[in-house]
Amino acid sequence: MAPHGEGSEEAMVVQDENRKPISSILIVIAMQTEAMPVVNKFQLKEDLDPVFPKGVPWVRYHGVYKDLHINLVWPGKDLTLGVDSVGTISASLVTYAAIQALQPDLIINAGTAGGFKVFDLYGVGSRQSFSTPNLLKELNLKAGKLSTGDSLDMSPQDEASIVANDATVKDMEGAAVAYVADLLKVPAIFIKAVTDIVDGDKPTAEEFLQNLAAVTAALDQAVAQVVDFISGKCLSEL
Amino acid sequence: MAPHGEGSEEAMVVQDENRKPISSILIVIAMQTEAMPVVNKFQLKEDLDPVFPKGVPWVRYHGVYKDLHINLVWPGKDLTLGVDSVGTISASLVTYAAIQALQPDLIINAGTAGGFKVFDLYGVGSRQSFSTPNLLKELNLKAGKLSTGDSLDMSPQDEASIVANDATVKDMEGAAVAYVADLLKVPAIFIKAVTDIVDGDKPTAEEFLQNLAAVTAALDQAVAQVVDFISGKCLSEL
Repeated sequence: MAPHGEGSEEAMVVQDENRKPISSILIVIAMQTEAMPVVNKFQLKEDLDPVFPKGVPWVRYHGVYKDLHINLVWPGKDLTLGVDSVGTISASLVTYAAIQALQPDLIINAGTAGGFKVFDLYGVGSRQSFSTPNLLKELNLKAGKLSTGDSLDMSPQDEASIVANDATVKDMEGAAVAYVADLLKVPAIFIKAVTDIVDGDKPTAEEFLQNLAAVTAALDQAVAQVVDFISGKCLSEL
Repeated sequence: MAPHGEGSEEAMVVQDENRKPISSILIVIAMQTEAMPVVNKFQLKEDLDPVFPKGVPWVRYHGVYKDLHINLVWPGKDLTLGVDSVGTISASLVTYAAIQALQPDLIINAGTAGGFKVFDLYGVGSRQSFSTPNLLKELNLKAGKLSTGDSLDMSPQDEASIVANDATVKDMEGAAVAYVADLLKVPAIFIKAVTDIVDGDKPTAEEFLQNLAAVTAALDQAVAQVVDFISGKCLSEL
């Protein structure tokens, strides 16, 4: 029998947290094109009483699906240039602000990504501290290592780092969301649908745009399946 | 005489803000080695009642110098690896959280940086929307364009972008601080002391460490001069 020290009590509290049914999830998505199918699927409504500071372009949608409170945030359009605020800085800020305001039980970062030599449609990445073996098995999703960078194209230096770290999928936000989730101790999972093979023959931007609509539909389906799987479960069952 | 429409009143409010004496400044510094001389110079005290969320490594020092409330924040040591939390993500997060909690009139991002072919000791960068001509002239500081990247070394692609954009100084946080300051509408200035010439002969890491102590002393002096200059002035006088 284990001694009942301070460490054990803390461990038991953590275990209890993992055994409570998940009641609130935060979905972080970088692009409007990626976000809207999920918003429509779960009939989420745009926030009329913003939880974010005045003046920021960040957008929150929310609603209830089965027993889950769903919040979906995307960092909105750049105020100067009008394009989607992709990349690590806006992803880290909106994730931080949303965790502070909404205190979710679980974060799902969903989006499109580039793939490396592998032709799997999805890569589901998880932080080392949190894994989802049942979810992966039930939904027949592939697990992969995700690499994140602020450039859509890949420089030879980036490629060398990615290969050295055995990553198979490359996005522009995942590591930023993971950093903030880890900092604030919220479990996070990552659902990435592959738009283009970044080490293939076609130029990345062209291939990306060609595949975006089809891949977004696949992403939408994967997110819906994951949310359905999560409903009624606790963290330790994922 | 100009018509007294809504636009004019808004412009007048902004003008009034710029004519109030600056009462609160936020200094954002990424490395402990860079921060401590400034903390000591202004006899700042470490925060005992943290304004940041529980568990984050971010550190705040504060105090009063002449008529200025000074807050200095640095993102602290990485909780896993124990090294300074350098780079854009932690810089953007700690800047965001500090603006929310402290509502400063002006942000100063100070730190060491790499230089390009120019041998100026300092580059003071400012966002296009805010300039400090009097400060530059009075303190004999050089203005320069700052480029920010998460890598200490520079890849050929980074170098091409930096040259194309006519930047002369390269750091790892400035653009992240500028992004957040712009988002939340707080004027920001950037004081960078050059540690190494990144397109020179010596390897960057070696040159960086050799020069760090000397350059940090120069940075410390520049920050003290800038704070002295700011004291008693309003934004429009900088």
